[in-house]
Amino acid sequence: MSKVTIVGVGSVGAACAMAIVAQRRCSELVLYDVNTDLVEGEAMDLQHAYAFHGVAVKAANGWQDTSGSDIIVITAGARQKPGESRLELNGRNAAIMKSIVPNLVMHSHTAVIIVVSNPCDVMAKMVHDMSFLPPGRVLGSGTYLDSSRFRSFVAKRLNVDPVHVHGLIVGEHGDSTEELCDMHSCVVSSAQDIIAKRGYTSSGIGFTVSRLVDKILRDSHSVVPVSTSVKGLFGITEDVFLSVPCVIGRSGVERVLQIQMSPEELQKLRDSATRIASA
Amino acid sequence: MSKVTIVGVGSVGAACAMAIVAQRRCSELVLYDVNTDLVEGEAMDLQHAYAFHGVAVKAANGWQDTSGSDIIVITAGARQKPGESRLELNGRNAAIMKSIVPNLVMHSHTAVIIVVSNPCDVMAKMVHDMSFLPPGRVLGSGTYLDSSRFRSFVAKRLNVDPVHVHGLIVGEHGDSTEELCDMHSCVVSSAQDIIAKRGYTSSGIGFTVSRLVDKILRDSHSVVPVSTSVKGLFGITEDVFLSVPCVIGRSGVERVLQIQMSPEELQKLRDSATRIASA
Amino acid sequence: MSKVTIVGVGSVGAACAMAIVAQRRCSELVLYDVNTDLVEGEAMDLQHAYAFHGVAVKAANGWQDTSGSDIIVITAGARQKPGESRLELNGRNAAIMKSIVPNLVMHSHTAVIIVVSNPCDVMAKMVHDMSFLPPGRVLGSGTYLDSSRFRSFVAKRLNVDPVHVHGLIVGEHGDSTEELCDMHSCVVSSAQDIIAKRGYTSSGIGFTVSRLVDKILRDSHSVVPVSTSVKGLFGITEDVFLSVPCVIGRSGVERVLQIQMSPEELQKLRDSATRIASA
Amino acid sequence: MSKVTIVGVGSVGAACAMAIVAQRRCSELVLYDVNTDLVEGEAMDLQHAYAFHGVAVKAANGWQDTSGSDIIVITAGARQKPGESRLELNGRNAAIMKSIVPNLVMHSHTAVIIVVSNPCDVMAKMVHDMSFLPPGRVLGSGTYLDSSRFRSFVAKRLNVDPVHVHGLIVGEHGDSTEELCDMHSCVVSSAQDIIAKRGYTSSGIGFTVSRLVDKILRDSHSVVPVSTSVKGLFGITEDVFLSVPCVIGRSGVERVLQIQMSPEELQKLRDSATRIASA
Repeated sequence: MSKVTIVGVGSVGAACAMAIVAQRRCSELVLYDVNTDLVEGEAMDLQHAYAFHGVAVKAANGWQDTSGSDIIVITAGARQKPGESRLELNGRNAAIMKSIVPNLVMHSHTAVIIVVSNPCDVMAKMVHDMSFLPPGRVLGSGTYLDSSRFRSFVAKRLNVDPVHVHGLIVGEHGDSTEELCDMHSCVVSSAQDIIAKRGYTSSGIGFTVSRLVDKILRDSHSVVPVSTSVKGLFGITEDVFLSVPCVIGRSGVERVLQIQMSPEELQKLRDSATRIASA
Repeated sequence: MSKVTIVGVGSVGAACAMAIVAQRRCSELVLYDVNTDLVEGEAMDLQHAYAFHGVAVKAANGWQDTSGSDIIVITAGARQKPGESRLELNGRNAAIMKSIVPNLVMHSHTAVIIVVSNPCDVMAKMVHDMSFLPPGRVLGSGTYLDSSRFRSFVAKRLNVDPVHVHGLIVGEHGDSTEELCDMHSCVVSSAQDIIAKRGYTSSGIGFTVSRLVDKILRDSHSVVPVSTSVKGLFGITEDVFLSVPCVIGRSGVERVLQIQMSPEELQKLRDSATRIASA
Repeated sequence: MSKVTIVGVGSVGAACAMAIVAQRRCSELVLYDVNTDLVEGEAMDLQHAYAFHGVAVKAANGWQDTSGSDIIVITAGARQKPGESRLELNGRNAAIMKSIVPNLVMHSHTAVIIVVSNPCDVMAKMVHDMSFLPPGRVLGSGTYLDSSRFRSFVAKRLNVDPVHVHGLIVGEHGDSTEELCDMHSCVVSSAQDIIAKRGYTSSGIGFTVSRLVDKILRDSHSVVPVSTSVKGLFGITEDVFLSVPCVIGRSGVERVLQIQMSPEELQKLRDSATRIASA
Repeated sequence: MSKVTIVGVGSVGAACAMAIVAQRRCSELVLYDVNTDLVEGEAMDLQHAYAFHGVAVKAANGWQDTSGSDIIVITAGARQKPGESRLELNGRNAAIMKSIVPNLVMHSHTAVIIVVSNPCDVMAKMVHDMSFLPPGRVLGSGTYLDSSRFRSFVAKRLNVDPVHVHGLIVGEHGDSTEELCDMHSCVVSSAQDIIAKRGYTSSGIGFTVSRLVDKILRDSHSVVPVSTSVKGLFGITEDVFLSVPCVIGRSGVERVLQIQMSPEELQKLRDSATRIASA
């Protein structure tokens, strides 16, 4: 028996729910959203197909319904308004997280929290700081999907299965990264491409989170690029979260793999840290 | 190796795609839509997560890309405009299907076609008549989801797993059915409930279609309530499609199970037929 | 994260292990056997394929390695020697269980115990009595496989998927049951058939146990025929275990479904109880 | 719908069957063995659990029952008798394969044949030569399991998930390879260890074959070390099969990846080729 809670059931949260349920990653899934109509509709829709997937899905009626979660996925957050500064957006997001995180942690002491909300690295650190949980228990989905996209592009060019392409994108999840080369720029812009075409991305991140849930619940010690505290690693001095290769298990991020990077790669990673710290 | 094509990637088509991919029902999934941006965005989003699910997803660039499909799922169709009559809506739907069905059949002679578009019973018959395929090779998803909802409600009241509740809802998929009893009315209105709450239903039908795909591709001879030609069965004289318990396999609907019904149930089923025939 | 322990890795225990691992029913599987070479070989063989299934498999080096199990499957037991009476066999089995059960329970207070060892109904009661666990937490696999065989025979004759054949075999798991009819006799003798042909049955019971593990860990409230205490039910006065339809979940057998039976069926069930009580 | 046939249902064939069925790699599985009792017992045992796995399992009554297979797995073969020379063993194996291979190919023109029988490299070439199938359509399971064992040992030492350890063992499948280092010698001797402990290995190879079946049926273009014709590659001049990294898909081995090896590694690979050619 394992229990997962998803906070925020917009298109991303709904896709996470669909992937987790379809892939039977847990036995119980709780959905939470301030929009109670939305969350009830979403839960009913999934629950009606119970005979086809076998996962009990419920809309939370209050924080106590999230109690005893093994994993909490946070997709909630504010959207940047036209003309709004990064600082103002951060402020609004902080207010949202203040209303969520302490309540979640109070009811699920041993949960691992996966932060999907954007800007992912900033939000993961924010949630971590508010949670008072041990280091590693809060992580951001970060560049795990970016890495999957990168592997998928390389694999397509070579006509091999992406699972046999090994490579990671580290650093900041977002579009600020400079364009290194054609393929990398493809990766960075691909989320923008999808948004331009259909308004938002969802299934990609849904499958990414579903895979993370599996790796954590199985205590698999898998190596994945997720957003974690990197102060003191790779020569980074700022107190920021960034995606680096992490070994993850039932307690979240167990350790960071100090992989070899070229001086140029290291510099870019440190620049990423500086940029986020000053954002 | 098995290939599934989904025609129409609105919220229902997208949910079907997500469930089919997450549950690995096939090795190749092709998406088709007249909105080429939408279909490309949808396919890219799913394909980026290939390393997490292992199903090759492509946006069709033309009908030839759907070639050799084992199953075709049609979710495309017109929405009723305010003030538009049923007849006018049927006319617009017929025009859409004329532009789709012959092209699909030409490239996939042995496919089973699952019609999800609403009004499901009318559309399934329309597609069947245009396809010139043998009887049984075109079926409507019909009341399979309604039956799952019904089982889910009963199971909740009894606190048992819905897979152990056996019962079928037959007849027309839609909201015209008279309310028999509290639980049945719950089922009939539950789609309306979800729509009121979140604007549309999707994951429920997505899982339903994914399960149908599995049952057909495994040639399982499963018994499911789907929409098929019922003229000459159960005392029905009209040439209509309605949901009745069917044995389905690799060739679609193999036979209809002539289950025992009470005189009252039979009458209601025949009324359903009359109502659809005159629509 | 969920942990299953299998005690006894002969052909039945090995088949249970293979099915549980292949169907990813848990994240950790511990194997225990007095034959330490056998259990180490079995665990190594499964563990070498970890990259293909993702379940951590270990050979227990002592009872403490079974600690914190969610489910314990017992397949260990003595084989009847030529000329040995039932009573003598029971005595040897009791000695074996005495050496196992208290140790298991001490390290896994909340586990559900599934007894597969034959004679299943007698052994399940024996384990239950030694365990001092609450009623329901010890169950025998009983006639769940027999019921699956029965459904499979009926389904073949009707050419439909066995999941749509609903029927249960209740009473004693074994070959003492009188032959009611052709199909039932087929079921009763089919284990004998397989044994005659290949020496033992294993995969069938392996899949049966794997399914039970899934239903328990998901707290599914499924209805299955398993062996449980039936004193006071169906007019049975003896203190015996027999297979009757049970609702099972995370705490084992939650309740017995008092299904309607014909007077003849009831009498046969009571005869079964009498026969076992006097064995 | 996909169909797999397994020829030979000893412990290895039975483990392949169990893994393939449990992981639902196909919709139909046919078992073939000269021992008709054994094969019927095996098929019945698996088929009785159909409601728990959903794969139709049949014992072949003749070659026509294997007709239209997508994949054929050959585990049949002779065991070396005490005092028997390699040449004599090869002769007996050739006689067995002559009685099998032409019949299989006649009924399944487009099948990929996976040879598991030992000595794997010799047998895969033998089956290939008898089959008159295009190059690549016959492959030996070779060192795929050895590689999985190697990854599992490295992973254990590093405490990470084996799926993140990338490394291949190439060359001959067997125990003739010289011991390079501690870990490698562990891999080479681990099959011997298991055999010493429990008499034979089975589940490891069962999962390996099940994974190969999945990769082929999904046309995945995966990179795996399997036994294929290597004449003209890596400086090998002998007409032998050896395991090298292959891209596999629906047509079997699509191409060999000419990975970089050190001069020492290349020499060892060529020595492997010489040794097999002269065997």
